[in-house]
Amino acid sequence: MNKLTVQKYGGTSVGSIERIRRVARKIIETKEEYGQVVAVVSAMGDSTDRLVEMAHSITDRPSEREMDMLLSTGEMVSISLLSMAIEAEGYEAVSLTGPQSGIITDLHHKNARILDIDTKRIKKELDSGRIVVAAGFQGITEKRDISTLGRGGSDTTAVALAAALKAEKCEIYTDVDGIYTSDPRKVKNAKKLDVISYDEMLELAFLGAQVLHPRSVELARKFNIPLEVKSSFEDKPGTRIVEVDQVEKVVVRGVTLDEDIAKITIMEVPDRPGIAFRLFSELAGESIPIDMIIQNISRDNVNDVSFTVKWDHLGKALSISRRVAVEIDARDVSFDDAVCKLSIVGTGIANSVDAASNLFESLFELGVNIQMISTSDIKISCIIDKSSGKEVLSHIHDRFILNDIEIGEKN
Amino acid sequence: MNKLTVQKYGGTSVGSIERIRRVARKIIETKEEYGQVVAVVSAMGDSTDRLVEMAHSITDRPSEREMDMLLSTGEMVSISLLSMAIEAEGYEAVSLTGPQSGIITDLHHKNARILDIDTKRIKKELDSGRIVVAAGFQGITEKRDISTLGRGGSDTTAVALAAALKAEKCEIYTDVDGIYTSDPRKVKNAKKLDVISYDEMLELAFLGAQVLHPRSVELARKFNIPLEVKSSFEDKPGTRIVEVDQVEKVVVRGVTLDEDIAKITIMEVPDRPGIAFRLFSELAGESIPIDMIIQNISRDNVNDVSFTVKWDHLGKALSISRRVAVEIDARDVSFDDAVCKLSIVGTGIANSVDAASNLFESLFELGVNIQMISTSDIKISCIIDKSSGKEVLSHIHDRFILNDIEIGEKN
Repeated sequence: MNKLTVQKYGGTSVGSIERIRRVARKIIETKEEYGQVVAVVSAMGDSTDRLVEMAHSITDRPSEREMDMLLSTGEMVSISLLSMAIEAEGYEAVSLTGPQSGIITDLHHKNARILDIDTKRIKKELDSGRIVVAAGFQGITEKRDISTLGRGGSDTTAVALAAALKAEKCEIYTDVDGIYTSDPRKVKNAKKLDVISYDEMLELAFLGAQVLHPRSVELARKFNIPLEVKSSFEDKPGTRIVEVDQVEKVVVRGVTLDEDIAKITIMEVPDRPGIAFRLFSELAGESIPIDMIIQNISRDNVNDVSFTVKWDHLGKALSISRRVAVEIDARDVSFDDAVCKLSIVGTGIANSVDAASNLFESLFELGVNIQMISTSDIKISCIIDKSSGKEVLSHIHDRFILNDIEIGEKN
Repeated sequence: MNKLTVQKYGGTSVGSIERIRRVARKIIETKEEYGQVVAVVSAMGDSTDRLVEMAHSITDRPSEREMDMLLSTGEMVSISLLSMAIEAEGYEAVSLTGPQSGIITDLHHKNARILDIDTKRIKKELDSGRIVVAAGFQGITEKRDISTLGRGGSDTTAVALAAALKAEKCEIYTDVDGIYTSDPRKVKNAKKLDVISYDEMLELAFLGAQVLHPRSVELARKFNIPLEVKSSFEDKPGTRIVEVDQVEKVVVRGVTLDEDIAKITIMEVPDRPGIAFRLFSELAGESIPIDMIIQNISRDNVNDVSFTVKWDHLGKALSISRRVAVEIDARDVSFDDAVCKLSIVGTGIANSVDAASNLFESLFELGVNIQMISTSDIKISCIIDKSSGKEVLSHIHDRFILNDIEIGEKN
């Protein structure tokens, strides 16, 4: 008894009064079973969208500090209502804002990072037998202003609190029932995973699996917090995210498709030292993340340099590339937004002799041309034509995951 | 220059995006004219009602702490939007919650009293040239929980901040253009007052003038803060509330009618010491404010005791009275809710030889029976039959205020 569980409930899980009541009962069950619960809660349903809309009806460019003040009210509404619902069932609860939970962040409004957590207040409330209902997504800066954590903020709050409070586990309740081998909306045969390693989950999250934000996975890995992603609407096991040695070894855990990218090519870049550095440092200076880069030695000491960026960054990346191209005497800049990125992810890839060749062979058999390749210990990504992306995804998924193809290990 | 003005804008004044924009411009004009502004803002329009409704859809009896957490979001929305609107006009603004404004209250959630104000943060923001947009109605307890100040809370916040910051003046912007000699909805000839004393305003507020809450008037009187009540929709002078020696002396400043009362009578109370104390201490123990009390010696050492309470408290007051009546051997308890309270208010009443007799004579001429009377230095109140209340109000108003009747001063 008196083991602490941290649970996180997303916006859809508390999207209505009826759902808030259901979440209250779930929390009480956990309290009865384990002794202590901290529930981290997001803003109700689309309430954040409505607040953003109000701000934009005032001004196109609201200041980030004031946006954080405004947005933080969303979770304050859900935590107070949820606490009332718990109290209505005869249990003691206390809602705590980010500042009250002691979540101290840096000064980057709208995308703050947690610097420290002062757990005094939460511990006091838990010790006096109360269920703590903490606002996700928000904290307080050292200037004593309210900050918000940006995308995936509530997941991050939950994992950070679990780490700071040395919780037994952290459960992420959401509107899907776990992590899948691929996106079930795109791949008919996608299967729910019972278990996945932090590293694999991190890759999947970076590759666009929407369920968990990479920041929260990184944090869980760093502090070794057992995570579980579960449905808040059904009472069944979800997907546990654990250390790699606790996972049955497979070569490929998941297959992803990112259709949200574009490729930029700078043609005939003179082959002089420092040229690539110049381009990519200017892009980094504008906070444009570059994903894959290839450079082909084409002819006469000039190279073609290609790289991929997120769709959102295409316009800015293009204008920077065009400016730099002129400065470095490159011939021209082109772009291609009819591409997508197919990836296989699994901790077994590093030790597999033929994961890559199997992937390339499969793509060849499907008649798919590979435009770019990048690999890591646990991932192989290929840029391919967008038009056949979904079909290829299903084929590769079924071949690598359903058939669990025999792949030899490196000696 | 750099004189500080504190302005308070009520819920209707910031009830829409368009109104928020207008308030922003008003604040900027004041900043341009005086140098420093603290704007104290209520929750937008009916947003507080909507929050209360949400809470009651969860439970009939939400805890007061959680209600304060929930309700405090209302002002956080309006202060952040108003700050954005000011910034959109090219001025620097900063929104501050009650806790950020340093408003420290006691532990009485939903009806907290301000204990202290730590002005460091507000002063720092003002000194750096920013317009401060402070949340009305809310503060922080010494347990570091969010508290709310109850009815009239935003007025109280404004006056308290004006006192703590030693402001030049405090302007209360609202949906009426000032304080009237009587309720303009009931009295056709009611006139707006240019000026009124704190004491008179306090009596009017206690007698039900909705514009200012008595707490804020008391506070303004205590710290000698010049108050002005003005319309946020029209640009014209309102009513200034100042010390009595700055007001032109009249006997009667205003006439009020409180229709929201009931009279309870305990019949044949044995005439023994301590009996009245017993009844009224029990009522006080249940936080039921008693207004007027009369006791008639009727016959054979028994008295009839009558008192008035607010309509809201009638049920509770009756049940306590009935219980006590049995315990003290009184014959019976009756009540009358067809009564109302007519009052004349003016600092000249204390020195007037015939204000009271003029009032009673007028009521006699109108054929009105006076059931109870109470007087103070600046007020005479009569309980009369409710059916003729409004008609009598108009007559008395016109006689005492419009005709400005000659009333002799006491020697």
